[in-house]
Amino acid sequence: MAEYKYADYEFLMKRIADIKYSGAVLQWDQETYMPTNGREARGRQLATLAEIAHEEFTDARTGDLLHELILQGHLSDTEKKNVQLTLEDFTKSKKLPAAFVRKMSETVNRSFHAWIAARRSNSFAIFESPLDEIIELKRQEADLIGYTDHPYDALLNEYDKGLTVLTTDKLFTDLKVPLLELYRKIQSCKQVDNSFLQQHFSKQQQWDFGLKILKQMNFDFEGGRQDISEHPFTTSFSSSDVRLTTRVDEEDLGNILWSCIHEAGHGLYEQGLPNDQYGMPLGEYCSLSIHESQSRLWENNIGRGLAFWENNYPTLQEYFPAQLKRVSVNQFYKGINRVSPSLIRTEADEISYHSHVMIRYEIEKGLISGSLKCKDIPVIWSELYQDYLAVKVPDDRRGCLQDVHWSHGSFGYFPTYSIGSLYAAQFYAAIDAGNPSMEKELQGGNNLPVLNWLQQHIYRYGRYYHSNQLCERATGTGLDSSFFLDYAFKKYAAIYDFA
Amino acid sequence: MAEYKYADYEFLMKRIADIKYSGAVLQWDQETYMPTNGREARGRQLATLAEIAHEEFTDARTGDLLHELILQGHLSDTEKKNVQLTLEDFTKSKKLPAAFVRKMSETVNRSFHAWIAARRSNSFAIFESPLDEIIELKRQEADLIGYTDHPYDALLNEYDKGLTVLTTDKLFTDLKVPLLELYRKIQSCKQVDNSFLQQHFSKQQQWDFGLKILKQMNFDFEGGRQDISEHPFTTSFSSSDVRLTTRVDEEDLGNILWSCIHEAGHGLYEQGLPNDQYGMPLGEYCSLSIHESQSRLWENNIGRGLAFWENNYPTLQEYFPAQLKRVSVNQFYKGINRVSPSLIRTEADEISYHSHVMIRYEIEKGLISGSLKCKDIPVIWSELYQDYLAVKVPDDRRGCLQDVHWSHGSFGYFPTYSIGSLYAAQFYAAIDAGNPSMEKELQGGNNLPVLNWLQQHIYRYGRYYHSNQLCERATGTGLDSSFFLDYAFKKYAAIYDFA
Repeated sequence: MAEYKYADYEFLMKRIADIKYSGAVLQWDQETYMPTNGREARGRQLATLAEIAHEEFTDARTGDLLHELILQGHLSDTEKKNVQLTLEDFTKSKKLPAAFVRKMSETVNRSFHAWIAARRSNSFAIFESPLDEIIELKRQEADLIGYTDHPYDALLNEYDKGLTVLTTDKLFTDLKVPLLELYRKIQSCKQVDNSFLQQHFSKQQQWDFGLKILKQMNFDFEGGRQDISEHPFTTSFSSSDVRLTTRVDEEDLGNILWSCIHEAGHGLYEQGLPNDQYGMPLGEYCSLSIHESQSRLWENNIGRGLAFWENNYPTLQEYFPAQLKRVSVNQFYKGINRVSPSLIRTEADEISYHSHVMIRYEIEKGLISGSLKCKDIPVIWSELYQDYLAVKVPDDRRGCLQDVHWSHGSFGYFPTYSIGSLYAAQFYAAIDAGNPSMEKELQGGNNLPVLNWLQQHIYRYGRYYHSNQLCERATGTGLDSSFFLDYAFKKYAAIYDFA
Repeated sequence: MAEYKYADYEFLMKRIADIKYSGAVLQWDQETYMPTNGREARGRQLATLAEIAHEEFTDARTGDLLHELILQGHLSDTEKKNVQLTLEDFTKSKKLPAAFVRKMSETVNRSFHAWIAARRSNSFAIFESPLDEIIELKRQEADLIGYTDHPYDALLNEYDKGLTVLTTDKLFTDLKVPLLELYRKIQSCKQVDNSFLQQHFSKQQQWDFGLKILKQMNFDFEGGRQDISEHPFTTSFSSSDVRLTTRVDEEDLGNILWSCIHEAGHGLYEQGLPNDQYGMPLGEYCSLSIHESQSRLWENNIGRGLAFWENNYPTLQEYFPAQLKRVSVNQFYKGINRVSPSLIRTEADEISYHSHVMIRYEIEKGLISGSLKCKDIPVIWSELYQDYLAVKVPDDRRGCLQDVHWSHGSFGYFPTYSIGSLYAAQFYAAIDAGNPSMEKELQGGNNLPVLNWLQQHIYRYGRYYHSNQLCERATGTGLDSSFFLDYAFKKYAAIYDFA
């Protein structure tokens, strides 16, 4: 009888997954191939699919089924975990009344268009009022979901279960002082050259090299593909159909390199999730922090590493002989790791990147707790950029209007970027410690020691563990920023030639 | 109150359209970009969307709403027509019990795979048993739907409302004798040369020329696009997002030319449907026959016409100077209209094409009435090809296994191909008669006289009229095969130089 009920539950979950993944296909098409005038109907279609998925999931029948399954027992460990996680999701989604969800969705839609207009006019004033409404709704959302210490905890939890202001404060405090010290130290050194990245590189050659790198990383093209979009992203419609996108800038080689490697890191994770758990929580990724750890590990720890380029740089030179023949692999390695003051988060080096995130984290915390008002964002933004990175913010477009997240209502998302990098460094250290020959393998073009470790310790668990539990099981200890700091100090002391 | 109910009805119809169009996006992706291993999950996702759309449409609430609307009255003409058409669809879909629909869907799925295997082994025997089951189900379907004279009427009706065996027999009888006479006459003439089409034509150049033709035909790229697929098709996700696909054969220029022009004919129709009737019957195409009339009109009456190439051929020569510089526009025109015996319907010229369709029509009629048994198909197929086209069918792959339709359960579909061509010739004659300068306009590259006529007489009506009503209103008379015969005799007498 329990088995039969579990089959009902599986049937329902897979059906809902079908609807959600269908939405993902529509979204992917919208970002890659959809003609301009398709937008209006596509908006409707996406909204309808989201609505149906929500209706089916929050139906009373779902709750009954879950409670029956728990009461009946006789479930395997995997089955029990799936049911528990679904019950958590169900309970949470029931906390937000339909009217609230609709209001949020309408406000977000309005606010997104205001953000576009504000960026166009380079004026925060245009975005202020809808953003203020969103912040108010996010504060209400935190109350509806509930929290123990800080309302922002409820929002952080959406992206990384168990993450709190307390733990994030601790992580960022440990990180901030030594990292800013490192940043200032580097600023006092002789700068490395990366001007060779800003030459003309033909689009087709870049694209071909990008695909070569994806293959070299073992991204499976039978179960995935890469296309072009304005903003690179990864999405999947099952673990056997994973879509990456990239962009190509003919005057800047960096664009495609980092977006390919970064998105492939996400893509390998999606391809590695258990295929037999399609639609079930254990077939889903652990958290946004862990997802980001996968992209950052490949992008930074491996993709900006010397071993990786000792293998791939000769090929890159073959693709672009005129542009790169006079640049040695060492010069290339130093250039791609150049640290310099920056205004734009997505273009930042891996050291100053965390400052960008910590600034947003401080602001979000204040907005959600109510200690900071929406209208004060531009001023506090400028102050914090001066404080952290010693840069002057020239305008709103290159300041608080640069990211889309707030217009989407995504508060609590930014910290996962930094936390992902911290996990990445800790995972990388564990792989390194367990495989004395790993660097040599990477030099020889073999990424399998890394991929196998990730498969064994991360991918196959889906959502079984929280981020921090997963980290503890994989590395022997919970998240600890010292792994990143050790990695960064060692790497940049060598690049900038200080002890 | 009526207005309020109508809004409810519109809301429901648009929501169901969102689900169906979402399925169309998934299908499009499956045929164009989806990686191999995506197939399994995609199958699930498509089935779920189809199921949800069916559930929502056949829900008792839909019927109640429709009946209330009709009882209440106070509807505008457009509203009334929408409600009537939806009620027809609803009534019909209620006639097929869920168990029957499921059985059909399972049998079709099995039968499609059997067809693939049968083609691979070049053996009808492998396909026979599942096809036999499908025929039995189609006979049941005809009984469930109901009919007055012939069970096949119920199936023809699925693709072209009001079409019957009686009218189709009459059309095909009128067509058959003179057309076969024309075919035999042509066979006795000196054959024209089309060998210049079978040279090497680079893929990129063909693709670029294809896009040029689409633009020249006024296909709107803000509301549509073209991609590559194995079998060319047209689909749409609203009248503002219409997708064409084509294929390129580097050794045969004909492939892309006719698939581009043919699909663009379908695409222009989809783009011309009333955008404000999204999801409503009046936003849908009239019938498959009329849809096919649109593709055939552009492909044959215009795209295989001299005026069209007097404008476009110099450009084609610029794209392929080495291959075409010695071929005059007249030689080109004759070559692309070469009539020759053929085994494969999709590769046939516009004269023998109808024989392919009439053969299938005769067989389908027999299978559905029961006068013909499934196992007899290969024999009767060979006999009919000998009779109509004087060709010997060498094997099943080039015989009764060539088309996918039966494996999909599509019986009654084939006749719409010929009927579409007959409508096309009749429409073209009407446009010509109303615009004495039309040929001159086409020679000058202006297709708007054609497009405007189609917009005014076909596109904007959606499903308002049946095919034959639409034809009567547009041309002054119901469908009459003499327009096609006149066109064909005149055109081919000039090409093959007989009186």
